[in-house]
Amino acid sequence: MSYKIEQLKQILKTDQMSIEPNALKTYGNDWLELYKPSPSMVLFPESRQNVEDIIKWATECNLSLVPSGGRTGLSGAAAAQDKEVVVAFERMNQILEFNEIEQSLTVQPGVITKNIQGWAEEKSLYFPLSFASEGSSQIGGNVSTNAGGVHVIRYGSLRKWVLGLEVVTGTGNTLSLGRGLIKNTAGYDLMNLFIGSEGTLGLITEITLQLTKKPELPCVFLFSVPDLSALMNLYHLFKSKLPLRAFEMFTSLAVEHVQKNSTVSFPLKEKSSYYVLTETDQSTQEEALSLFESALEKGYVLDGVISESSRQAMELWSFRENISEALSPHFPYKNDVSVRISLLPDFLSEMNQILNREYPHFEVVWFGHVGDGNLHINILKPEKMEKEFFLKKCEKVNDILFSVIKKYKGSISAEHGVGLLKKPYLHYSCSKEELIYMKAIKKIFDPKGILNPGKIFN
Amino acid sequence: MSYKIEQLKQILKTDQMSIEPNALKTYGNDWLELYKPSPSMVLFPESRQNVEDIIKWATECNLSLVPSGGRTGLSGAAAAQDKEVVVAFERMNQILEFNEIEQSLTVQPGVITKNIQGWAEEKSLYFPLSFASEGSSQIGGNVSTNAGGVHVIRYGSLRKWVLGLEVVTGTGNTLSLGRGLIKNTAGYDLMNLFIGSEGTLGLITEITLQLTKKPELPCVFLFSVPDLSALMNLYHLFKSKLPLRAFEMFTSLAVEHVQKNSTVSFPLKEKSSYYVLTETDQSTQEEALSLFESALEKGYVLDGVISESSRQAMELWSFRENISEALSPHFPYKNDVSVRISLLPDFLSEMNQILNREYPHFEVVWFGHVGDGNLHINILKPEKMEKEFFLKKCEKVNDILFSVIKKYKGSISAEHGVGLLKKPYLHYSCSKEELIYMKAIKKIFDPKGILNPGKIFN
Repeated sequence: MSYKIEQLKQILKTDQMSIEPNALKTYGNDWLELYKPSPSMVLFPESRQNVEDIIKWATECNLSLVPSGGRTGLSGAAAAQDKEVVVAFERMNQILEFNEIEQSLTVQPGVITKNIQGWAEEKSLYFPLSFASEGSSQIGGNVSTNAGGVHVIRYGSLRKWVLGLEVVTGTGNTLSLGRGLIKNTAGYDLMNLFIGSEGTLGLITEITLQLTKKPELPCVFLFSVPDLSALMNLYHLFKSKLPLRAFEMFTSLAVEHVQKNSTVSFPLKEKSSYYVLTETDQSTQEEALSLFESALEKGYVLDGVISESSRQAMELWSFRENISEALSPHFPYKNDVSVRISLLPDFLSEMNQILNREYPHFEVVWFGHVGDGNLHINILKPEKMEKEFFLKKCEKVNDILFSVIKKYKGSISAEHGVGLLKKPYLHYSCSKEELIYMKAIKKIFDPKGILNPGKIFN
Repeated sequence: MSYKIEQLKQILKTDQMSIEPNALKTYGNDWLELYKPSPSMVLFPESRQNVEDIIKWATECNLSLVPSGGRTGLSGAAAAQDKEVVVAFERMNQILEFNEIEQSLTVQPGVITKNIQGWAEEKSLYFPLSFASEGSSQIGGNVSTNAGGVHVIRYGSLRKWVLGLEVVTGTGNTLSLGRGLIKNTAGYDLMNLFIGSEGTLGLITEITLQLTKKPELPCVFLFSVPDLSALMNLYHLFKSKLPLRAFEMFTSLAVEHVQKNSTVSFPLKEKSSYYVLTETDQSTQEEALSLFESALEKGYVLDGVISESSRQAMELWSFRENISEALSPHFPYKNDVSVRISLLPDFLSEMNQILNREYPHFEVVWFGHVGDGNLHINILKPEKMEKEFFLKKCEKVNDILFSVIKKYKGSISAEHGVGLLKKPYLHYSCSKEELIYMKAIKKIFDPKGILNPGKIFN
């Protein structure tokens, strides 16, 4: 190792490397906290040149690199549990260029997601990526998992907002992909291949993002809906008429848990098993209200309220946004899956039937971005059950859940990626042939397997 | 060959194959008409099974396949000049499923683009892909070149509207990619790799498209602008305030040629070197008019008119849409390139300077989708110049044009693909390393090189 360190000192300053136990623990883990962090070292590159040099060094020394952003991932994609060298991008956090005519922003990968939103805001523009961990996550990590969030229904996943990527591949080649061009049909689209590849094909050193016009003020509705088929009808009615920017579902159990910690009283009188939170532009409020009336008449909703101020809008959102936090004391088994939107009711009914049969004593909380076909399942640990025993029971849930996902041709990971957590289950969403092709692609860009080895697949 | 035909008869009906000279000529060519068509046979698959069988047969018999849609391409990607077997998709022209809740449409690859627009229209929805050859082109071909068109500024290229692709690779494996899911982070994004790969990685057998809400009625402006820097200022002013759905530029020379064949008189009194046609939503007309006034004051525009009926809107569009046809009697040298939008003025000035110096006697007509950074150059053959001599002269223009494109980090093909025509020039837009990676990807999906060989690269 000492020889390797000597070589490293040729390319990095001393303060750009750490073997401090605390640093190893912090940077070797992600928010999933399921894998024991055990990296051999943490490096802090400050430039593309640093990244190129680190990759060359790792190749020569036969070392593995784990790229690390805000480590807010929930799939273990940033976990280093096997003496890998963590490459933390937090010092590559510069906004490089704002192009006013193109409304584009070129940044380094370590910029915090929320700072990009803020930068856009300052320019009276908008960056649509938004989710709970936006204050900690970094844009490089977001690109590496093709991040989703709450606005996908209108704006799509992050992929749609990336105009350019600079990446250094496992062979140390720097590629300048996309280059800020709107139209480019010269050869295969390598850029999209890197987006969502979880750091296994290359390390991102620069990102060009498309910003857009600021949206109007929001108008938020909270509805209680009688059942899943009514929920789909409501979705269809609203989606086909309004410029929706969110359509979220959660169950009555979720509300119960949120209310335990909340000072905001639940505003709906008519209770139900399913609730919907939807957001549209304020200028469409009148149309939205008349659709609400029509939905009431048709029995798609039982009750509903509309936000009349930004404060009220935030209060309504709190019932959706505080779910994860409210559930966390119950050590929930979590999963993030998707199916085609129209298949959601059947998928959910089938899952609920199975879970009721197999785990009658478990509390199962569903919520998610229904408008994207994306559901988050949370199974809560019964208070008196041992944690170990609960975890073991839940392992079987994976196979049940993913078998149903496979039947519905859905995805075992809607927006959280594969990482280590879902690696054993990838075959439920990808055919044998797809996996063979993916592994062959990995071999092209990282023939020595030094980039995030063991993530997505072995 | 007779043995091969015998085998073929096991998998296709007799009327699904042709060696008729007329068929060979028709199906072995595309609208570029630069390469002498010389396929050995044309096959007409009617199902995915047919396509799988054809690929197996071709592999066994060591034959090359050229996929063929509407053959409206302008890069020779559908040209068969070397005894290849053409696989024409025109009989796979079924609409398979309309999903009302998801507003998605699943189709076979041989459906005519315009028919998809029409189907969407019938359902009070909208398919945003639109360009001059939409009445002949097929959706499979559109996906294979990631088609652009006139609405990219608002809707993006076709890539953004593809939710699913079924493809058969060169090894005969059928992959079901995307599967209509909005969110999916399970493994590498193979779907986007196939989009724009010009039939070199697999043959498309099914496509799921996202439809969207019908846009409002249009409001069209035609402006004369004093120079390129004013044009950029105008773009910025309009783009940042209005939901533009087109921002097209053309030069005074283009107008002169269109007017020769037109009964519509040009509506602007103030003539200039550059004209802009822009389209926005009718509901924003008032704001657009006030922006127009402000643009007049600031000197961004010299003159302008606004459409007051759909007929007038069409008349204004005719000055843009009829350019290609008006130029065709002059055997134009054509090219389709892109740069970042903000670099357009510098790029255009530099090109004009070079062309004026090197080819002072050539008429050069520029037009294009400025809002996407996409320009079409047309150099007209001087009336008395021999065609051969003109073509030779123009070959040198390629290198001049692409060298400047390289300097501006643009694309040698904005929306027409590479095919045979731009193959020798791909290195101007892709680095040596990118090309190596692309060739390696081709080898993964088509190791025997039977799919559209010699297209994009050798």
